[in-house]
Amino acid sequence: MPGELTRGQFIATSVAGGAHTARAKPPAARRPKPAAGAARRHADVVVVGAGFAGLTAARAIRQAGRSVIVLEARDRVGGRVWNHDLGGGRVAERGGTFIGPTQDRVAALAKALGVNTFPTYDTGEDLYVADGTRLTYSDTGATGIAPPDPQILAELATVIGQLDKLAATIDVQEPWAHPQAAAWEALTLQTWLDQQIVMSARFQEVASLATRPIFGAEPRELSLLFTLFYLASSGDELNPGTFERNFSTRNGAQMSRFVGGSQLIALRVAQALGSGVVLGAPVRRISQTRSGVTVVSDRLTVSAKRAIVAVPPTLAGRIAYDPLLPFQRDQLTQRYGQGVLSKVAAVYDTPFWRTQGLTGQALSTTSPISATFDDSPPDGGIGVVFGFVGGDNARAYGIMSPAARRAAVLDQLAGFFGDEARSPSGFFETFWVGEEWTRGCPVGIPSNGTLLAYGQWLRQPVARIHWAGTETSTYWNGYMDGAVRSGERAAAEVLAAL
Amino acid sequence: MPGELTRGQFIATSVAGGAHTARAKPPAARRPKPAAGAARRHADVVVVGAGFAGLTAARAIRQAGRSVIVLEARDRVGGRVWNHDLGGGRVAERGGTFIGPTQDRVAALAKALGVNTFPTYDTGEDLYVADGTRLTYSDTGATGIAPPDPQILAELATVIGQLDKLAATIDVQEPWAHPQAAAWEALTLQTWLDQQIVMSARFQEVASLATRPIFGAEPRELSLLFTLFYLASSGDELNPGTFERNFSTRNGAQMSRFVGGSQLIALRVAQALGSGVVLGAPVRRISQTRSGVTVVSDRLTVSAKRAIVAVPPTLAGRIAYDPLLPFQRDQLTQRYGQGVLSKVAAVYDTPFWRTQGLTGQALSTTSPISATFDDSPPDGGIGVVFGFVGGDNARAYGIMSPAARRAAVLDQLAGFFGDEARSPSGFFETFWVGEEWTRGCPVGIPSNGTLLAYGQWLRQPVARIHWAGTETSTYWNGYMDGAVRSGERAAAEVLAAL
Repeated sequence: MPGELTRGQFIATSVAGGAHTARAKPPAARRPKPAAGAARRHADVVVVGAGFAGLTAARAIRQAGRSVIVLEARDRVGGRVWNHDLGGGRVAERGGTFIGPTQDRVAALAKALGVNTFPTYDTGEDLYVADGTRLTYSDTGATGIAPPDPQILAELATVIGQLDKLAATIDVQEPWAHPQAAAWEALTLQTWLDQQIVMSARFQEVASLATRPIFGAEPRELSLLFTLFYLASSGDELNPGTFERNFSTRNGAQMSRFVGGSQLIALRVAQALGSGVVLGAPVRRISQTRSGVTVVSDRLTVSAKRAIVAVPPTLAGRIAYDPLLPFQRDQLTQRYGQGVLSKVAAVYDTPFWRTQGLTGQALSTTSPISATFDDSPPDGGIGVVFGFVGGDNARAYGIMSPAARRAAVLDQLAGFFGDEARSPSGFFETFWVGEEWTRGCPVGIPSNGTLLAYGQWLRQPVARIHWAGTETSTYWNGYMDGAVRSGERAAAEVLAAL
Repeated sequence: MPGELTRGQFIATSVAGGAHTARAKPPAARRPKPAAGAARRHADVVVVGAGFAGLTAARAIRQAGRSVIVLEARDRVGGRVWNHDLGGGRVAERGGTFIGPTQDRVAALAKALGVNTFPTYDTGEDLYVADGTRLTYSDTGATGIAPPDPQILAELATVIGQLDKLAATIDVQEPWAHPQAAAWEALTLQTWLDQQIVMSARFQEVASLATRPIFGAEPRELSLLFTLFYLASSGDELNPGTFERNFSTRNGAQMSRFVGGSQLIALRVAQALGSGVVLGAPVRRISQTRSGVTVVSDRLTVSAKRAIVAVPPTLAGRIAYDPLLPFQRDQLTQRYGQGVLSKVAAVYDTPFWRTQGLTGQALSTTSPISATFDDSPPDGGIGVVFGFVGGDNARAYGIMSPAARRAAVLDQLAGFFGDEARSPSGFFETFWVGEEWTRGCPVGIPSNGTLLAYGQWLRQPVARIHWAGTETSTYWNGYMDGAVRSGERAAAEVLAAL
């Protein structure tokens, strides 16, 4: 049937010197053309988006004995989660990669699907590189997750302590209801930092070093309220979110990885849904009446009793709705842009940094990369290191030539791990802001005042339309776990209403 | 021909107790159905949007001897400028209303079309109402445009003086290039105010009183850089923008009005363009190749050499582009939401406030209205007063019942002008944030960091696609004059390239 999911149809493009944005291009023979007429199908529920949120919702609906159709714009499933084929059965991740403690919902889903985890390589010392400074340190050492840079250490302790203290007062169900919500919406993270400490040039760089990977943004682009919510969200009901749980590998959000790559979870859910997943079907319009909803995509029109829209707010806002959504929902999506984050990766014959006693994790105030991780396959038979390029760095990186980008990355990796890093066997990058059906990573970022004014509309259904996606999650907002949680929540809403 | 402009096909709906959002509903017989097939036309230039920007551009292109087609989503022209028919040949304005000194481009356009101006009624005293305080004052008095409230007067002088001083250092061509641009993008207007003065509850209310009509936003939602740019933009090459020129009636942006209503300008331009303006044609997709551009609307597909997109950034971002736009342009439109502003108006048999020696202009810290103006026809034969409801007030107002909204407005007007205000002969409101093809008023507002990172992409053409709309203007950004300037600039770009 046209548009059904076909396993293995993804070509993960290596773009060393090639196309800037790697796109999935299924072989032409396998890519069904849109039906000339208006193909129509019916289901109890239609889901927009086959990322982790949409797939999780569809799976729950199917398991409850209801019919479901998932419309996915891309020629693949997974959304912001996307395996890169390294050959020989090995994969690396172009998007969401890690799983850590309290990320129990994605853990349960993986377990149910037989997708196993393994520890992120974390043996040895981490690196910290700032202008003229190169330190190695252990995150079990005296400074914990903080690099032992005397220029910033005291200030960092102050700031992280205060962030955690404030985040602990946030109700992740409704951060906008906090007594200080309006005051915190008036502050950017930058302003708040300036109020806490005497800001040195070095600390300023370290602040961006953190916000670029976490948010794909600079401290000036972040509302303090949203920042505090995001940290509070990095946990669960029993374990309040903290900066350390968000940022750490050891006992943190980067602790483990999935055997077979994180996208394997999406592939297995989609495989079970079979013809319930329709690829290459960007949704353009959603109409609803008192009795049902009609979702029009380029390939297929689906009528259903309920719809779940499981795409980032900025993409949900580009769908035409009839009748119009309440103004609050539209305003929300007008001011909830995706972060700017690229993931760059180099492949080597071996993970050679391990023999130097290094974890492969580096934090750097230099550019373009702010943070690296060892992304090698479980057997360590080849070495992969990836770096996050975010915020101002990503904007500068995005206008460089492919050759200049590659050179800048390899130069920086050589500074971290030695000259061996200059000769990778592979190099690939994923420029998420150029991906039509994501438009930025890792997460949507509400502008100052938006959570306060419109936050309750993130999840509030509009008649027969329900909202999912990691941006709607109370816990692990911005993560795969948050996406899964949001899918489970939206499915429960819909099933209760059917 | 289907879709041609038909004069007089607008029904300006009175919504006292009726529909919340007044929409133009042309008589069914006059409303052509979309062609079943893909109707196609060709022109040298295709323009998206028949607001002041798009119409000005189309007029200039036509005058240069080139062919042009304007695709307009609504069933009327004018965009954010929309006459309300009061009967008897009288009109009031639902959107953009005023013209003032240095707004020379809209003045020249009106003159060329034979649309005359007349002074905004400004004889007598203005009102200022705050909790328990009701003052009358003249803007030629000792305190100038500032209401003589001793609780705020000194602070207001400080703040306005400092805003003007900083705005004077901004280059409106590239505010993002200012040496302080990054620092000012890190500050919300709220934070900046908190740094200038000891903020009293009263001053806080007065700050919102100003930002609600000017921006449709609260001080917490505004970047300082954008705020300073907007004030700098309230002028021209010879007369730098100031807060006073922006906010004033006397010698300011509210000094004059158009005989026949401001929309008459758009109607006359469209009339001259004839079948070059196609109504009811929302644009969904713009494709371009090396040789041309194709614009697909619901009604008509137009092929052309160049395109001008003359709609607000948040709407431009909802069009599908092939190939994708540069990431910077898309990011810009992801974080450039429209302000939240409603215009409410009451109609009376006479402008009775005039006999009390009042101008009809009131500033109030109470809700829902922050500012009123006399919007009576030139002959004063009937009385019209309108009020701006913006920011937090508009969000609260937007969820009230129609009856409660009307009661709140009339209560407040009675507080300003006496009990006579409780018995209008007409009442109408325009909830711009609920207008599908505007999505908010008066102007798009970039979030913190957006002008700095992406501002240059407001105007920068993308191959054969050029950008217009008041948000792209250097001077009188957010005003009709800015829209006209942007249309002239975009037309000049295109004509130079044809």
